Formats: sequence, structure tokens, C-alpha cells
Amino acid sequence: MRAVDLIERKRDGCELTTEEILFFIQGYAEDRIPDYQTAAWAMAVLLRGMTVRETIDLTMAMVASGETLSLRRLGPVVVDKHSTGGVGDKTTLVVGPLVAEAGLPVAKMSGRGLGYSGGTLDKLESIPGFRVDLSPEAFYNIIAEHGMAVVSQTADLAPADGKLYALRDVTGTVPSLPLIASSIMSKKIAGGADAIVLDVKVGRGAFMETVTQARELAQRMIDIGHGVQRRVTAVLADMNQPLGLAIGNSLEIIEAIETLRGNGPKDLREHCLTLAAEMLLLGQKADTPEAAREHLGELLDTGRALERFRRWVAAQSGDPDIVNDIMRLPQAPVQHLVAAPRSGHIARLDARTCGLAAVTLGAGREVKDAPIDPSVGIVLHAKVGDPVEAGEPLLTIHARTQEEAQAAGRRLLAGYGWSDTAVQPEPLIHEILREDS
Amino acid sequence: MRAVDLIERKRDGCELTTEEILFFIQGYAEDRIPDYQTAAWAMAVLLRGMTVRETIDLTMAMVASGETLSLRRLGPVVVDKHSTGGVGDKTTLVVGPLVAEAGLPVAKMSGRGLGYSGGTLDKLESIPGFRVDLSPEAFYNIIAEHGMAVVSQTADLAPADGKLYALRDVTGTVPSLPLIASSIMSKKIAGGADAIVLDVKVGRGAFMETVTQARELAQRMIDIGHGVQRRVTAVLADMNQPLGLAIGNSLEIIEAIETLRGNGPKDLREHCLTLAAEMLLLGQKADTPEAAREHLGELLDTGRALERFRRWVAAQSGDPDIVNDIMRLPQAPVQHLVAAPRSGHIARLDARTCGLAAVTLGAGREVKDAPIDPSVGIVLHAKVGDPVEAGEPLLTIHARTQEEAQAAGRRLLAGYGWSDTAVQPEPLIHEILREDS
Repeated sequence: MRAVDLIERKRDGCELTTEEILFFIQGYAEDRIPDYQTAAWAMAVLLRGMTVRETIDLTMAMVASGETLSLRRLGPVVVDKHSTGGVGDKTTLVVGPLVAEAGLPVAKMSGRGLGYSGGTLDKLESIPGFRVDLSPEAFYNIIAEHGMAVVSQTADLAPADGKLYALRDVTGTVPSLPLIASSIMSKKIAGGADAIVLDVKVGRGAFMETVTQARELAQRMIDIGHGVQRRVTAVLADMNQPLGLAIGNSLEIIEAIETLRGNGPKDLREHCLTLAAEMLLLGQKADTPEAAREHLGELLDTGRALERFRRWVAAQSGDPDIVNDIMRLPQAPVQHLVAAPRSGHIARLDARTCGLAAVTLGAGREVKDAPIDPSVGIVLHAKVGDPVEAGEPLLTIHARTQEEAQAAGRRLLAGYGWSDTAVQPEPLIHEILREDS
Repeated sequence: MRAVDLIERKRDGCELTTEEILFFIQGYAEDRIPDYQTAAWAMAVLLRGMTVRETIDLTMAMVASGETLSLRRLGPVVVDKHSTGGVGDKTTLVVGPLVAEAGLPVAKMSGRGLGYSGGTLDKLESIPGFRVDLSPEAFYNIIAEHGMAVVSQTADLAPADGKLYALRDVTGTVPSLPLIASSIMSKKIAGGADAIVLDVKVGRGAFMETVTQARELAQRMIDIGHGVQRRVTAVLADMNQPLGLAIGNSLEIIEAIETLRGNGPKDLREHCLTLAAEMLLLGQKADTPEAAREHLGELLDTGRALERFRRWVAAQSGDPDIVNDIMRLPQAPVQHLVAAPRSGHIARLDARTCGLAAVTLGAGREVKDAPIDPSVGIVLHAKVGDPVEAGEPLLTIHARTQEEAQAAGRRLLAGYGWSDTAVQPEPLIHEILREDS
């Protein structure tokens, strides 16, 4: 078998066999197939597509390129959650303790933020002392004792995916349905998940800008799961505006704590309850979405989920007292209030603009491994559909300097749209796709 | 400007600007843009195409990546000829001396054979002493004195094309109309041609298998020429069966000598007269194709073209006495006659099968820089349309061993098709496309 023949077959729109896909991915992982051949192949895949069968084979070839984790000792069904990334998305911080408290263990591998999209690890590291680099033993022991743990993704799981992703990033081959779907699914499967809830973001601040695109991606991942006996549920969630009110690492920790206490923004609470309920369903800890949501709502409102959060943070060496004293989290020197420039209903609050402004403030990074400032960010005081009077507080910018705050304020205001009449925001949850079972 | 943005734009079907194409090709030639980005870009170009304007820009960007030759001192119009490659194609060996004798200087850079397609340099090197590695001064001086010279392509002309071609070869991005057209034209333009006659082969033994494909490629090259003030004529010539009767390096030299003497196979003579006439027209050495052909036919039949050949061979250090004594050329130890297995009309004589059989005998190479045997090859005794009696000589195989000869014989017979009724061969020349002038 020669790599160039497989490139040509994919270029000509043919379906590759299981053996051919395994040959290519193994060869790439083991440096027998060079970057330039893989780049040409990836472009051919992007432009020609892959069948479901090919995508399943690609996923499993990437899983086979490295180690796989077994978490079977933790419970009969290991449920994972994955978000395709967005702005102000602190869902894991709420959902993790919530479902752990409901009896479903959470073994989460997370990534860092890149571009306008934040990352759970960055948020957690704004908690003084918090460690994300646990040994496999510590990871397992913390889950066994506290029901959850979050660590950084290891390069040992699906290494072919890591290598391919880095190549796709510089060769214009990121936005390919089969390549995205197999990348996500290979990491989850290698990480030991039996069932997965996908939080697929849709809109201006997401990779998928339309519901149609997001549904297609979600369906492909459900199909992959079906092919390899992993149950997958996909929640298509709006990301035209940020999720919740806070954007920025320690600011999002504060908002997560409020939500775990039952006082969070309505959209964030709703989003977290939806995802957590789907996880309980897959994990056989609830029979109906309604029953799951009722139980989960109680865990928030009684403070049980927050207490779970507190103990988990302590277990990962973080300062547990942040729960009662948010001043223990990093604070930005400047808090700059931006007033509404006009009266009206907010018609648009561009998530991408918010995400990019947060990056400029120092909350995120343009390139991998760049340092970030955990203290800076944005707190919104109103969202799409809300009526606002001119001069009322619209948002607060947490910045390192007045100049940076003012520049971000100007940039953010450009991301708003206004209406003189009432505005109906996009639904928070567009659809929930479950595998027919 | 970033390479990845240009890859994405081409991936999405956009037209790249002149500056963008120059940036990409310069960057690649100067190793600032890596192979993997160029491979992804080439695949996007293959699958998305390029406009004529982009193809012109690509051609001239490759020309600009290296030196350019000026041959203006040789005459008012420098005419070059290029064949897209075929089996038994010794046209240059005949056409060169022929048009040189008609007063048009021939400054030819040629390549070596690869795969089933032969190369002019390999054929010339079967002449004892012949040298193809001339200095630029020697090249020029020999043309000035003898009207023609043939040298190996220098890496200094359009080096970006050389680099890109090598990459395309291993990334499944060879069969792209704009990439093929710009590759050919960049080399010819960098080589100093004012006008170019393209010998575009069509059929089973050619890169372009259909007249439609060949016409499209030819038209694109004519369009490129038009865009940069080079007149281009394209001859679409059949390559379903080999050209002439001989395949193999010294065997083709012998056939070229016979043709220059006026005794060559009818199809080869016809093909050479057609191409030579088009060259004279572009070089303003004739007013009509008919006048050109008549004059050229005389140059063959009177031996003047052969004498030109003899003097040119001597000028490039080759043995001129081969003209009168073909035994001075390398001879294969085995000559194996293959008889017709049945009576009938030859309906098919697959050029690719012949080319591949010749490679197996040692006349060509599968990979670059592999050694070849100048003596081996195939001589056909009948071609498509000819009636043959069972047991009559069908072809003679010149081989290193009896075993190799017999294996080649079996392989070759499989490339024949037979008919009980008369067969009309494909026309030798399908079309001649001239720039509207």
C-alpha cells in the first residue's frame, strides 16, 4: 500500500477501506507518512468528504494510535461531556459537581483556551493552588473519593489526532465534518467514555454558525458512537451571545459558584441543567429528563452541588475558601463600567466580539502556550432581549489598565445591536439529538 | 499575508490575486512556506481549479523564481516545441534537424523518461559519446553554428516548478489542469521561447486520455501564452498506439535516422511534418502549412535534414557515423521475434502496455535516476488497422535475456485487440489549435 495511492483515491471521491485508513493514520502517527502527504490527504477529505463508515474507521484508527483509559471500576457506565467551545462557557464547572453529587462519576480531560474560545483548565487555574497535572493514580483516586476530577488532556491518548490536529491548523483543513467529528470522538473514546453528551455550540461565537451545520456534525458523532457501541446525545446550544454574564477566568469561576449556589444567570442554569440531565439519562441515574432536572435543581438550590465543588477543588489542591470569599481569587486592578450608549432592547451581543475583546484584555491567547491573566475579563449586565435605558450600566470591564479597559469598551460596543421594539433572543437550546434506542 | 489564509481561500473556491500567488510561490521556492502547506494548497487547486488569470500568474511566478534565458541573438523569433510525453515519441530527433535545416534555430531543453513515457535525453545518450550537459556558452555556440542543440533541463530555470512538481508527484496532485499547464509553460518561457508548438498526446499511452481533456489543457496553455505575448499552437496527437514502430532508446535513434532519410514509418513522418510546419509558421519561415510541409518534405527526401542531424550529433560529441552504420549503436544480445497468434486486423495496440513492457525490458525507469539499458526495446511490424496472418512476424523484442524477451512478449500480446473485419485507426492528428491572430 502506498500513501500516494490513498490520497489519489480520496481525491477522486472514492471510499477508503478500513485497512487503508488504518494504514494512513498508523503511518502518520509513526512518521512513516510525511506531513505533506497527510496535508494533501486532509484537504482531499475536506473537499470530498467521508462516509460514516470511513469516519468511524478514522476515529478508531486514531484511538488505536495510543493508550486508552479504562474507567470501568468507577461505575457501570462512564459518561463524559464535551463542548465544542464557546465564549463564557463555564458549564463543566457547574455540571461536573452537579452530576457527581447525583451519583455519576465525572472523569474529565479538558483543554486550554485558544482564540476567542475559553478553556476549562485556564479557568480552574485561576483558583489559587489548583492543580490540573495529576498522575493517573491521583486522578482516579480523587474521582473515587470525590466523584469527580478534571485534568489536562494527555498526549498519550489518540496521539495521531493531536498530530493531525496541529497539521490541520496550519493547512486550512480544520473545518471538515469527518475530521472534526473523528477528532472529538477519538479523544473521548480513548479517554474511556461509554457514553458522551456533546454540547454543540451554534452561532457567531461558535465553530458551527448554523443549526444545520451543527446538526450535521452532531449526527455524525452520534453515528460514530453508534458504530462503536457508545451512546451519544447532542445538545445544540446557542452561542450567538455569550453563555451567562461573565467572560474571563476568575470571573467565570465566580459565576459558576453562584450558579452552584442556585443564584446563577438564568441561561447558564438552564443550560447546565439540560446537559446534566442528559448525562444522568445516559448514566442510568434517571428515567426521564423531567425527573432528572427536578432532582438536579434541588441539588443546586440546597447547596449540595456547591459543597461537592468545594471538596473537589480542595482535592485538586485548590483553595476551597473561594466558595465563601471570592476576594481570594485574582482581581484585576481596573474595573471600568461601560454605560449603555442609547435606550432600547439589545438585539445583538456578538459572542465572537466578546471573546476577542477578552483575549485582548489578556484573558485568552492567540497562540498556543501564551501566558494569560486570570483576573481580567468582562461582566455583562444585560443580554439579548433585555430593555436598557441610555446611561444605565451595560457591562463592566476588568482590565490591567484604564487604556486597555477603554479600548475594550469601544470594541465591545461595536458588537451590540439595538432595537426600539421588543426582541426575542435565539432559543438557548435549539435541539437535543439522542441516539434512537 | 499568511499561507494558511491563501490555502483557505483556494479551498473555498475563491480566486487568488496576483500578489497572493506570487507570495505563495516565492515563499515556497525560498523555503518560507513548508511542503505541507503547499501540498494542501495544491490539492485545493486540483479540486477547485484556477481561472486563466490565476494560471497566468502562477506561470509567471514560477518563471520569476529563477533565471531566464534570452535567445534573442539567435533570431527574431525563438520557437520551442514541447511534447506532453508518450511511447515511441522520437519527434524531437526528427523535427529538430528538420526545422534547423529550414532556417529556424532550435534551442531545446529536454528531460528524461519516467514510467512508461520515454525521454529525449535518454535516447540521445544511446549515441556513443553524445553529451547533454553543455555549458550555456557551448549550448549557444552549437546552435549558432549548427542551428540546433539539445541539453538537459537546468534546475536554474523556474526552480519553483521543479520543487512543486516533485511535491505533486508524491501528493496525488499531478493531474490538475492549471498545475500542468503552468508547469509546462513556465519552463518554456523561462527557457526563452517566444513561440511554442505543443505536441499534446491523447489516448491510452498519454496523460490525457480523451480529446476533450487534451483540448482543455491545450486551450489553457494557449490562453497563458496569449496573456504573456507568447504565441502558442497546440497539436492534439493520438497516443492510443505508439508513434512509429520503434520503442527503446537506440532503436528510436535508428528510426529517427530512417525518417530523416525519408524512409521512416508513415505516421512518424506525418507527425513530424505537422509539428515542424507549425513551428515554421510561428517562426515566420513559411506562410501556409501547405508550403511549409512541401518544403520540409523535400528536406527529408533530399537527405539535407539527415546531414544536419549528423553535424549536430558530432557537435555534441556524438559519433556521427551512426548515420551510415547503425551497428555502432548499442545492440541487445537477444532479438526475439513474436509471431501473430491469429489472423485478423489489429484493432488495438495499447501504447501504455508497450511503454510498460519497454520499462520492464530496461529501456525506461520506474523511479527517477534509475539506470537504463540503451539497447533494449521493441520493434513493431504492424500497427492498428493492418491485416496480419497468423504466424507472421508481429513484433521483435530486443532484450538482455531470452526469459525477459519471452515475458515481455506475453505481456505485449495482451495489449493487442483483434478484429475479423477492417479497422479504421484513430486519426494521427486530432486537431490543431492555433491562437486567434
